Amino acid sequence: MARLYRGMRDFLPRQMISREEIQEKIRKIFRRWGYVPIETPAIELLDTLHGKYGSDADKLIYKLEHSDGLGLRYDLTVPLARVIALYDQQLPKPFRRYQIQPVWRAERAQKQKGRFREFVQCDVDIIGTESPIADAEILAISAEILTDLGLRDFKILINHRQILRGLVHISGFASDDEFSVLRSIDKWDKIGKDGVREELAKKGFERKSIDKIFELISVDDTNWNLLSDMSKIGDERVKAGVDNIRRILEYLASLGFGQDIVEFSPRMARGLDYYTGAIFETILPELPDMGSLTGGGRYDELIGLFSGKGKIPACGTTIGLDRILSAMEELKMFPDSHTYTKVLVAQFSAQLSSSALIFSQKLRSVNIPTEMFPEPKKLAKQFAYANKWNIPFVVLIGEDEAKQELCVLKDMKTGRQRTVSQNQAIRILAETLNSK
Amino acid sequence: MARLYRGMRDFLPRQMISREEIQEKIRKIFRRWGYVPIETPAIELLDTLHGKYGSDADKLIYKLEHSDGLGLRYDLTVPLARVIALYDQQLPKPFRRYQIQPVWRAERAQKQKGRFREFVQCDVDIIGTESPIADAEILAISAEILTDLGLRDFKILINHRQILRGLVHISGFASDDEFSVLRSIDKWDKIGKDGVREELAKKGFERKSIDKIFELISVDDTNWNLLSDMSKIGDERVKAGVDNIRRILEYLASLGFGQDIVEFSPRMARGLDYYTGAIFETILPELPDMGSLTGGGRYDELIGLFSGKGKIPACGTTIGLDRILSAMEELKMFPDSHTYTKVLVAQFSAQLSSSALIFSQKLRSVNIPTEMFPEPKKLAKQFAYANKWNIPFVVLIGEDEAKQELCVLKDMKTGRQRTVSQNQAIRILAETLNSK
Repeated sequence: MARLYRGMRDFLPRQMISREEIQEKIRKIFRRWGYVPIETPAIELLDTLHGKYGSDADKLIYKLEHSDGLGLRYDLTVPLARVIALYDQQLPKPFRRYQIQPVWRAERAQKQKGRFREFVQCDVDIIGTESPIADAEILAISAEILTDLGLRDFKILINHRQILRGLVHISGFASDDEFSVLRSIDKWDKIGKDGVREELAKKGFERKSIDKIFELISVDDTNWNLLSDMSKIGDERVKAGVDNIRRILEYLASLGFGQDIVEFSPRMARGLDYYTGAIFETILPELPDMGSLTGGGRYDELIGLFSGKGKIPACGTTIGLDRILSAMEELKMFPDSHTYTKVLVAQFSAQLSSSALIFSQKLRSVNIPTEMFPEPKKLAKQFAYANKWNIPFVVLIGEDEAKQELCVLKDMKTGRQRTVSQNQAIRILAETLNSK
Repeated sequence: MARLYRGMRDFLPRQMISREEIQEKIRKIFRRWGYVPIETPAIELLDTLHGKYGSDADKLIYKLEHSDGLGLRYDLTVPLARVIALYDQQLPKPFRRYQIQPVWRAERAQKQKGRFREFVQCDVDIIGTESPIADAEILAISAEILTDLGLRDFKILINHRQILRGLVHISGFASDDEFSVLRSIDKWDKIGKDGVREELAKKGFERKSIDKIFELISVDDTNWNLLSDMSKIGDERVKAGVDNIRRILEYLASLGFGQDIVEFSPRMARGLDYYTGAIFETILPELPDMGSLTGGGRYDELIGLFSGKGKIPACGTTIGLDRILSAMEELKMFPDSHTYTKVLVAQFSAQLSSSALIFSQKLRSVNIPTEMFPEPKKLAKQFAYANKWNIPFVVLIGEDEAKQELCVLKDMKTGRQRTVSQNQAIRILAETLNSK
């Protein structure tokens, strides 16, 4: 019997038409910004995947039964780093790449809306430059995509790994524990303030350090004064992080996106270990349970891990296709498209099938999406089929029509039906459908 | 260090631009014929995958380390059958679907050109009709795609599972052994006539039966007389198969594709167990080692295995994206595109970066794919970068230009360079690039 592994999803035509439409919009914007595509295999050596994301994430990698040690792609950033290391010379820097592929994570259950075991990531990254212009560009692309999709009320949350590491240091944690502390802080929105406190205590950290870090990051009004206050804390790394954020925001303004859409968020930590500089997410304040629609940051050390040739700076973001679709569904922003088909050519009788076949090809040759009903069933059934799929026009060629190169053209919305020459029908359909 | 699991491929921008272009063309044709998209997960229950393809294929399924018994998608037909069984009522019949996704096969090695462990299939199928019009439509779509891609010299090979089963029966094999015999015959092009004979002998079949089946199928001129001869053999199944092929070809002619592009090929068996009626492949006679570019057939029993509600007839084909790309590469049909970018906005100095940022956004706002160089490096380096990526135009805004809203516009092909107003530059670029 037919069953599906839980946490996995089938996409039927109605959902897929929206998915394709949104992917095409995202791809168009990536290209407009000068990004070029790459793709990497679903199956990577576990050696490549392990030790890049952090110990929590490593447990969520799907492994294959294979003596070579193989796992499924967990994100698109680590494969990108591997690609840069392997083909460095073929990719002049700065290298701007986009990549749209699924990733897999063996999550326990679907706790959060828009959280799945298989989901599509749309990544853009700039490799080979430390310039904050790159960070600003990545944020501008995220903002442009959400705006283009009609999700105008988003907020960009920004923070900085240098700031976080400085705060962790000031609070008295050992530098070896930085990642562990940040991974717990990252869960703030999922398990709440108390959950984070509990998790840090369980990990065995001192009460004093926990209190201190909470004092530093749990301020309720996340705003620009807070960023100024941070720079006065007196830690060099915190100060450098604050300065970097300020420059990014300046460039972002030149690209047409003002500070009003950005929020400094000292608790936003990003779950993955590889970030080194600015980190960012976009959220929809009207859907607080949805999580982030996009997320990324700067990771200047990751590529060096693969190439062994020292630092190659990089910065990028993921546009979470599935999260965006969940949000648009929630906000009832979906068009109700059943099909791409515009015309059904009905089949009057088996004897007349060749007239129908020939006419359907004529419609296709002028780029009108057309299907033909493959069996000479009762016409009522053929019309019912057109209605079920929301096909706007039906063409019928009966015996008399076939002899005179005529056809009956029916508009399924108005019910209007007229007999016209076949050439006339093509002209009418081309005009009506192109003007839409 | 950076390594890749062997048999897996990274696609760099030059290859990916061609892959995207071809996928977009294929998708456009699928839609023009009234097909709608679905997608299914990469991870399926092994229960779903096992026992559908045949025992040879079952061994090539990648398995996950997981207590639920999970494997990676092996083709797009079995997942489609599962989808039809699960969501039957939501999908009015005839249901025409397309699906473009990767599949995985744990092949031993890369024996054949265009044979990989991960590759993309582009499938079209019609569910819910036995009409040979459906088979003809699937063949017409295959032919239209290959023609559209410029691969005009293809041949469609056609055969029929009813004919093959009849011939196997006449030759004296037991009906339980049918699939096993067909799977060996299917390897004709890979291991040769002698290889097939040897494999059948190894399987323990009688010499007499092997001789007989070879006599029936190893005729060297595969032509239409042969089809006529077949119908005289006196087996009911063979006769039904021949009649079915004839009707399919009649309808195919009405769709504009004549018999000259089709060949009856009694040795073409298709490797998978689920086919029940007509089977077909397309090949390029000029590339005999390439294998088939498309392949499919009718499988009227497969969906019933999942739904348990009896027979739901179906017919379809895979358009093998990777094979097509290999063929086009071999035939040197690839455009040499490095990037989608049309304009590089150079950065004259850090002080002038905001002029460059603002101008780059103006170009994007009129849909000109534009990137900005993120660092104020020596101009020679920035121009060299544009050359490496084959970016056709560079725009430069120096100090004097910035003051007067001017810019230097350089055509990288001719080397011609002129100073114009920024608005004029946008007009010139829009006109030049749109006329291409």
